[in-house]
Amino acid sequence: MKRTIGILGSTGSIGINTIDVIRHFKNQFSVKYLSAYSNNHLLLQQIKEFNPDAIAIVDQEAAKSLRKDLNDGSVEVLEGRDGLLELSAWDNVDICLNAIVGGSGMEPTIKALQAGVNVALSNKESLVMAGSLIKEVLKKNGTKIFPVDSEHSAIWQCLMGEENSSIKRIILTGSGGPFRSTPKVDLIKATIEEALAHPNWNMGSKISIDSATMMNKGFEVIEAYWLFGLSYKQIEIVIHPQSIIHSMVEFIDGSVKAQLGLPDMKVPIQMALTFPNRFDSNWKEFNPTELTDLTFEKPNFDKFPCLNLAYESLKMGGSAAAALNIANDKSVQLFLDGRIGFTQIAEINEAVLREHKWISIPSLSYLIELEEWGKTFIEKLIKE
Amino acid sequence: MKRTIGILGSTGSIGINTIDVIRHFKNQFSVKYLSAYSNNHLLLQQIKEFNPDAIAIVDQEAAKSLRKDLNDGSVEVLEGRDGLLELSAWDNVDICLNAIVGGSGMEPTIKALQAGVNVALSNKESLVMAGSLIKEVLKKNGTKIFPVDSEHSAIWQCLMGEENSSIKRIILTGSGGPFRSTPKVDLIKATIEEALAHPNWNMGSKISIDSATMMNKGFEVIEAYWLFGLSYKQIEIVIHPQSIIHSMVEFIDGSVKAQLGLPDMKVPIQMALTFPNRFDSNWKEFNPTELTDLTFEKPNFDKFPCLNLAYESLKMGGSAAAALNIANDKSVQLFLDGRIGFTQIAEINEAVLREHKWISIPSLSYLIELEEWGKTFIEKLIKE
Repeated sequence: MKRTIGILGSTGSIGINTIDVIRHFKNQFSVKYLSAYSNNHLLLQQIKEFNPDAIAIVDQEAAKSLRKDLNDGSVEVLEGRDGLLELSAWDNVDICLNAIVGGSGMEPTIKALQAGVNVALSNKESLVMAGSLIKEVLKKNGTKIFPVDSEHSAIWQCLMGEENSSIKRIILTGSGGPFRSTPKVDLIKATIEEALAHPNWNMGSKISIDSATMMNKGFEVIEAYWLFGLSYKQIEIVIHPQSIIHSMVEFIDGSVKAQLGLPDMKVPIQMALTFPNRFDSNWKEFNPTELTDLTFEKPNFDKFPCLNLAYESLKMGGSAAAALNIANDKSVQLFLDGRIGFTQIAEINEAVLREHKWISIPSLSYLIELEEWGKTFIEKLIKE
Repeated sequence: MKRTIGILGSTGSIGINTIDVIRHFKNQFSVKYLSAYSNNHLLLQQIKEFNPDAIAIVDQEAAKSLRKDLNDGSVEVLEGRDGLLELSAWDNVDICLNAIVGGSGMEPTIKALQAGVNVALSNKESLVMAGSLIKEVLKKNGTKIFPVDSEHSAIWQCLMGEENSSIKRIILTGSGGPFRSTPKVDLIKATIEEALAHPNWNMGSKISIDSATMMNKGFEVIEAYWLFGLSYKQIEIVIHPQSIIHSMVEFIDGSVKAQLGLPDMKVPIQMALTFPNRFDSNWKEFNPTELTDLTFEKPNFDKFPCLNLAYESLKMGGSAAAALNIANDKSVQLFLDGRIGFTQIAEINEAVLREHKWISIPSLSYLIELEEWGKTFIEKLIKE
């Protein structure tokens, strides 16, 4: 029997890699649905190749074009944010891979889990925004999240066959991003092009900027906190510029396990789709003798204040991480639009974290409210 | 309930580390027996500290002294090779840790497994000599071997929670030993002191010489072959001078897991004694940011012919690896006694491998015969 898959965000960087994996294992997987924000051209190709039952496309203009191109009615086309949420709640798949970018991926994660579908989660903002809500849904529905981020997949793999009580700490590795060696004082004039130029991973623009500010690594700490049920004190970051060791777990007996390999998102995507099995397909030849001079450094919390903000949001608990994420979605967009400088991303994030109305148990409706408030607050802030 | 442990070879390097682990967990472990070759002084101390039911001491003079020192009859004292074998067959322990050095550790491993006792195996020569025999005993008795060698413990840990069919290959790391950077031409005049000076691990003299010739790494390939049920083509060696990554497994999906840590035998010893649990005690502080410039190189099969001999013995199968091991036990002793040069170790090993009477299914009595033949053959060889 084929494993049935739905892909949310199928035209983005992770979506395309997921399509590559599924194309490689056509006999093992069947694609039941796809979604995209606005890339109707690529989505059309994917529909023709995989023949899903339904798709969702958020942008209305793109939806119109797509309907025209399809015109045979063999695929159900859902439109807009509502269409995306309707599709996310479909229960006719074994796994929903959520590769939506940013906070708008949160509700689809919850919808899928509530429908009894396991989620292969690339959208880390889901757990950053709504960790406690999602944990409740998982508990209630008995569904599972399989991590897709290379770091969390690494930790997940290192923990296979191990007890959670055996964990001393987890060590998330990070390349340090494009500004690892840039003096702090120079970051104020960092350009969009410089910030987008990630040394090892080829990714979408939002996550590339998050990598440059190291907010991405901070969000990964929060994601790990929810995925693995640890104290934030048990989650550490180490800078490993070669991106070969994808993360490590130190156990209480002093033994350390690491998962490693060449940087290629297809490996963690495939793990999330094939778990508990592994399928035969090594995407890039691993040659250990080509590993040269693996190095490890402490992260620079002073140069990258977003790292501190992430740990602080975990200490604050409640709505803090959601506020941080809402702020960051907006501040990164402002930077990409050329409206603010690079260092202002962290400044805005910090202001929102401090000024938001903190509550201990944020509901979904509160989070939606918080997002509205955040957008207005930030617009006001940058006008001052 | 305390886990009951017997330790064979308790006064050697691994034995002493095992004692350290057990001392650290006095409430979890109880020592039921100990054995030593001739170090009656240290054995006496261990008896006083751990109060075992019985001990075996091989050397008759040492046994006499020990009896005099004990004189209260509270410990059963077994003597000589027969005494050691009798003790190995005791079935009143949960685990027998076999840290005997060289081929003389083989029969005790078989005795313990036949008695229904799981063996924490440091004596790699057991599997090198009698892999097929031991596999049969394991199958028949349902007993298990837990590896103690740091490399095999690493692979064992990486395989926890994984299917054997998911393995693409295992990659044994080795420091390269004291002669990693020595030109081949200089090895002919290598001294005992130089050969004993291992860069990273503090070990007994037999294994230190095996490390210098890389016969040790070759034996580890053979040990891995039997422990993990792989083809010899799936077992590779990579030189990693820092000895931080203790070994790796590459899976069929291209994912690689490694177990790492500071070089400290107490970690794999503890894993073998506490499996399937881990006990809280990290022996040395692991700080990933202190890992600098981890490097990996291809092994030099031309400079270290013992590596080739190991793979060749696996290709030959049957009695070949046993012959190699018998040769090496003797040739290393001859080198330590100053009777042959360093490069003659490999020459003797090769000659015995080529000249021995190969059979496909070696029995225990054949192996004992082979050992006698080997000793005589080598003595004749070096006189020529």
